[in-house]
Amino acid sequence: MGEHTVASFDEELGSIDQLIRDMGALSATMVADATRALLSSDNPLAQRVISDDAIMDAKQRELDEQAITLIARRQPMAQDLRAVVSAIRMASDLERIGDLAKNIAKRVGAVGQSATPKPLAHSIDSMASLVHDQVKNVVAFYAERRSEELPALRADDEKIDIKYTAIFRELLTYMMEDPRNITACTHLLFCAKNLERIGDHVTNIAENAYYVMTGRQLPMSRPRVDETAVSDAAG
Amino acid sequence: MGEHTVASFDEELGSIDQLIRDMGALSATMVADATRALLSSDNPLAQRVISDDAIMDAKQRELDEQAITLIARRQPMAQDLRAVVSAIRMASDLERIGDLAKNIAKRVGAVGQSATPKPLAHSIDSMASLVHDQVKNVVAFYAERRSEELPALRADDEKIDIKYTAIFRELLTYMMEDPRNITACTHLLFCAKNLERIGDHVTNIAENAYYVMTGRQLPMSRPRVDETAVSDAAG
Repeated sequence: MGEHTVASFDEELGSIDQLIRDMGALSATMVADATRALLSSDNPLAQRVISDDAIMDAKQRELDEQAITLIARRQPMAQDLRAVVSAIRMASDLERIGDLAKNIAKRVGAVGQSATPKPLAHSIDSMASLVHDQVKNVVAFYAERRSEELPALRADDEKIDIKYTAIFRELLTYMMEDPRNITACTHLLFCAKNLERIGDHVTNIAENAYYVMTGRQLPMSRPRVDETAVSDAAG
Repeated sequence: MGEHTVASFDEELGSIDQLIRDMGALSATMVADATRALLSSDNPLAQRVISDDAIMDAKQRELDEQAITLIARRQPMAQDLRAVVSAIRMASDLERIGDLAKNIAKRVGAVGQSATPKPLAHSIDSMASLVHDQVKNVVAFYAERRSEELPALRADDEKIDIKYTAIFRELLTYMMEDPRNITACTHLLFCAKNLERIGDHVTNIAENAYYVMTGRQLPMSRPRVDETAVSDAAG
């Protein structure tokens, strides 16, 4: 073995990082496409998101395989090992983001052609665009090792939660106004909840990325809050 | 080091397995308690589920630390490495089951005292009891290395999906009947969805456990279906 040119540990980790960047780019696209498909009843686009999810799954399996092979062959010590384990965790969060985007895409048919009221469509679009940027940025900050950007990025998850709570209340109003809205609004509710959960996965990725880069936990860990899941939303 | 009595790899893996058993037992209890709290508006019990989730998180961190230390010190080869990586994944699924149970508990206040209609309460209770048994059994089958039980266990996830779809439709009916039901029913809808998702995590655990025990994939992987998220539910 010694006479071969052997790639360094960092080079092999670089190949794993490339998979994370690919998964990050694809999952951000899936979030944007799923939302566009939902708000414009675009079934072919929804289908593309659904098939993109198979690519995400394949990339995650590839990353897992590479990571395990790397650990087995290189037997890295504490810090390098943590980098590989963190990559496995980030890939798992990205894969779940893809899953959640796929779930939005699968509801496009159920929501149907019934035009989503303009203000509601605007709220959902604005929430999705924030979520999309968060997904894109967290992977960019990880890839470019810009740890100093991560605290503000994680703090922005609160903006997503605030938008989710507003959409939740808006949807309840539409449902109460007219029972014929209930089925479609129920599916939109799950879509909004999925976007909120994507934000939580971004938070996980930010925390993992920060830890790998700095060896420290992101200060002042923020609890993932769904404000609608507490008693004050009952009224 | 050589003169110390060094625990074997299997003994160290045994300590990780014990954490999985602990997490499995606690998450099953959390599912049962959260559902009981929800259906009997028992706020103190809901609080206990919420605090149990912190124990789950601590156990997962402990397992992760032990697993990483084990990999770093023992540098296990392919098969042993896969056992450790699978344990990390199973713990992550169990931690998410705890999260989902906590989320149900957090909705107890929002659903409020408004009595859940008897037939609906019965449906939710029956679904939760199936989910509870699945969580308990998958961990038992893993702990006792009963791989032959896992195919049937995974197939039973379909029963959970069928119950979820029925509850989804039942809830839409109550919402359409009386707009005053909408807020409570929306929270119950998320609770039912959480139970359905716990079933998906059981499926993940079964697949991981089977692979570790047999070296093969569980045959005929079943897609995780949410029947309500397709167009036929739009009617």
